[in-house]
Amino acid sequence: MGNKVSIGLLGLGVVGSGIMKLIESQQKELVHQLDCSVEVKSVLVRDLDKARNVNVQQTFLTTDPTDVLEDPEIDVIVEVMGGIEEAYQYTLEAFKAKKHVVTANKDLIALHGTELEETAREHKCDYYYEASVAGGIPILRGITDGLAADKIEKVMGIVNGTTNYILTKMTNEGMTYEAALKEAQDLGFAESDPTADVEGLDAARKMAILGRLAFSTDVALSEVEVNGIKDLELADLEYGEKFGYTMKLIGSAECEDGQIEVSVQPTLLSNDHPLAAVKNEYNAVYVYGKAVGETMFYGPGAGSLPTATAIVSDLITVIKNMRLGVNGNSSLKPRISATLRSSEQRSGQFYLRIHVKDQIGAFSEISTLFNDLHVSFKRILQTPMKQQDLAEIILITHQTSLATFENALKQLYDLDVVQQIKSYYKVEGDAPDEVAGTTKALS
Amino acid sequence: MGNKVSIGLLGLGVVGSGIMKLIESQQKELVHQLDCSVEVKSVLVRDLDKARNVNVQQTFLTTDPTDVLEDPEIDVIVEVMGGIEEAYQYTLEAFKAKKHVVTANKDLIALHGTELEETAREHKCDYYYEASVAGGIPILRGITDGLAADKIEKVMGIVNGTTNYILTKMTNEGMTYEAALKEAQDLGFAESDPTADVEGLDAARKMAILGRLAFSTDVALSEVEVNGIKDLELADLEYGEKFGYTMKLIGSAECEDGQIEVSVQPTLLSNDHPLAAVKNEYNAVYVYGKAVGETMFYGPGAGSLPTATAIVSDLITVIKNMRLGVNGNSSLKPRISATLRSSEQRSGQFYLRIHVKDQIGAFSEISTLFNDLHVSFKRILQTPMKQQDLAEIILITHQTSLATFENALKQLYDLDVVQQIKSYYKVEGDAPDEVAGTTKALS
Repeated sequence: MGNKVSIGLLGLGVVGSGIMKLIESQQKELVHQLDCSVEVKSVLVRDLDKARNVNVQQTFLTTDPTDVLEDPEIDVIVEVMGGIEEAYQYTLEAFKAKKHVVTANKDLIALHGTELEETAREHKCDYYYEASVAGGIPILRGITDGLAADKIEKVMGIVNGTTNYILTKMTNEGMTYEAALKEAQDLGFAESDPTADVEGLDAARKMAILGRLAFSTDVALSEVEVNGIKDLELADLEYGEKFGYTMKLIGSAECEDGQIEVSVQPTLLSNDHPLAAVKNEYNAVYVYGKAVGETMFYGPGAGSLPTATAIVSDLITVIKNMRLGVNGNSSLKPRISATLRSSEQRSGQFYLRIHVKDQIGAFSEISTLFNDLHVSFKRILQTPMKQQDLAEIILITHQTSLATFENALKQLYDLDVVQQIKSYYKVEGDAPDEVAGTTKALS
Repeated sequence: MGNKVSIGLLGLGVVGSGIMKLIESQQKELVHQLDCSVEVKSVLVRDLDKARNVNVQQTFLTTDPTDVLEDPEIDVIVEVMGGIEEAYQYTLEAFKAKKHVVTANKDLIALHGTELEETAREHKCDYYYEASVAGGIPILRGITDGLAADKIEKVMGIVNGTTNYILTKMTNEGMTYEAALKEAQDLGFAESDPTADVEGLDAARKMAILGRLAFSTDVALSEVEVNGIKDLELADLEYGEKFGYTMKLIGSAECEDGQIEVSVQPTLLSNDHPLAAVKNEYNAVYVYGKAVGETMFYGPGAGSLPTATAIVSDLITVIKNMRLGVNGNSSLKPRISATLRSSEQRSGQFYLRIHVKDQIGAFSEISTLFNDLHVSFKRILQTPMKQQDLAEIILITHQTSLATFENALKQLYDLDVVQQIKSYYKVEGDAPDEVAGTTKALS
């Protein structure tokens, strides 16, 4: 490999420019660490003439992928072009040409990660993708290296900065969803088409990747249960707050006895939980290991330089592996096969807001219904509504199975006194004043 | 190395027992990852007859260190005996016998880390010590691997669980220092002799190690400025709370232009800072990287299994290196030489509580004093005291140099109206309601 490692860059957008800048500014440090220089030799772009906010010689740019993928002098491909089809093809071609690949492409990894890793291994190539989950947070290393000695039982994360920004504004400033989204868009924290973020799809991709690594099993994107935040009403955040909970879009992955459960859903999180303090556009991933207990990794989930940092960290690992002659082992762990938990096996606490007819015996009917299903409550709040004949009831259940809760919902629909089921959400943890066994109904 | 790696354990206390348990329970997983089994072959103990809460064959125990250090079949030494002199000698002997060493011994690393790393390198041995800082949190990896691509500018940490537990109790339950310490001792979070914890020495050792790794420079323990928590009064925590700050024992290490500043001191931390939410016996290390921005690593700072997890993670790294034939490179980074920042170069915001004679012009004298030194205030609170002729004044300054603040203190002592300087602490960050420029004096 000589005294220089040559990089081919696919894409020169926000992240690609950050990588160019970081490699330039950290060059001295890279030479120190790697005993060789690192140089971006060729960059695939869509438009040669587009203005760039980064210094790059025009002769390095090309619109022909073969200039990058077939250049024998290029050792490592950095794929930051996004999208799936082309990126997939180019990655395969890179491996076939014995080039290592580093990527930030969560969409690609979530869909084709397992297959691409196998192809990489076949060709003794490295394939690293730290930047694909939670931007600048070294969470994938945290899971694969740092916690290598432990059995991971659960991963919970705030892995989408856009939705966390919106939820923070709704919680702290009482903004509506629409107003908070607008502000996020104005500040560049949300895209003009925010669908993938607010519907939870972006978070679902990251949870599929995290679940795959944490449990050494395949997690298909279709196996992730996804609910977004766009139907959230302020009322539910405010009730949560009263009880000591903060609404967050939580990605969760659990594995026990070969059965997995992976979901992304708005969750009322105990204010005592470390994730509840994660604000604005920040990301954090909480990992529960059997031996180590609770750990959490916090940081910027996106952005040009944070993401570039993760990419360059991966690059350093690849180049160290090149020097040691040990590429192709980036995913040594054997995979276990796992099945999805059924709704009988899934359990949780649930928050429920319903409108009932304000008449004698109404609450009694509801409580009998839950009682018959052996579901008990940790919180109950009933408030008369402005429409005089209705009352709003908030319930938070103790731990119960999802199947039982869904059954309760179905039966509630059929009750005459129930005018509407307004909303229901998962609840995680015990609110601060519940911890010492002082659970109380709010008066 | 064959199909088995043999470990020699120095010490079988709380952490040693945890390592035995973890290696046993994770054996299948270790074989999968490493393609070889891992076996504890020999254990150095002080007392052969002591009752153990872990399964270990009596024949594996020895009181003779040479049984472990000179056994040619032992590949890796795990040093969890604590103390300095013996541990230092045994570690040197292990390297000379070409054995790799993994340790949790922060005292030893803080004092002799640089020298021992050099000896390890000379003998092509690995020397890892993830468990020495923040127990189960993979923070050293986070710094050396995950953020390898970035320039770290600042590391701040809550790296002592005992003091964080005490401070949490004082903050949340209004306990005095003495009562909180007593509870911590009863629950096993504080030792019967808590000196090293409450005086900040334990945290100082960890900050020396963190500073050394983050900035690739030598940080002598004597270069860490240390203040503990044993003189903290509830009043200062309560005033802090009123202004939006939480009192934490913060270890801080900064490096800029070859000048370092490393300290451990009680600090009023903005409630908005991610470290402010770290409660009870938990630890967290906040890292500020030039490119990545803010990241934080959170988890258990001590305990048998969490610490054992870090040790076994290091073991896995050592064994992987053995398989790859690349031991002896665990600290490849070149060191820079750095000098200590002078008090003129050190800056910060400061909290100050003084008792003054309650007479006309008293506050004016004080404000003139600060004004003459070009120090301005972000918070001022004056309250009459029960002793009718005295008033209590709380000041929080804007950013100023430490030298200037110390100068102000000296001049305050000489003022006739100042009856007593009760306390002063560093302040970190802006309280939540100051952020938007709405700083206000509390009425």
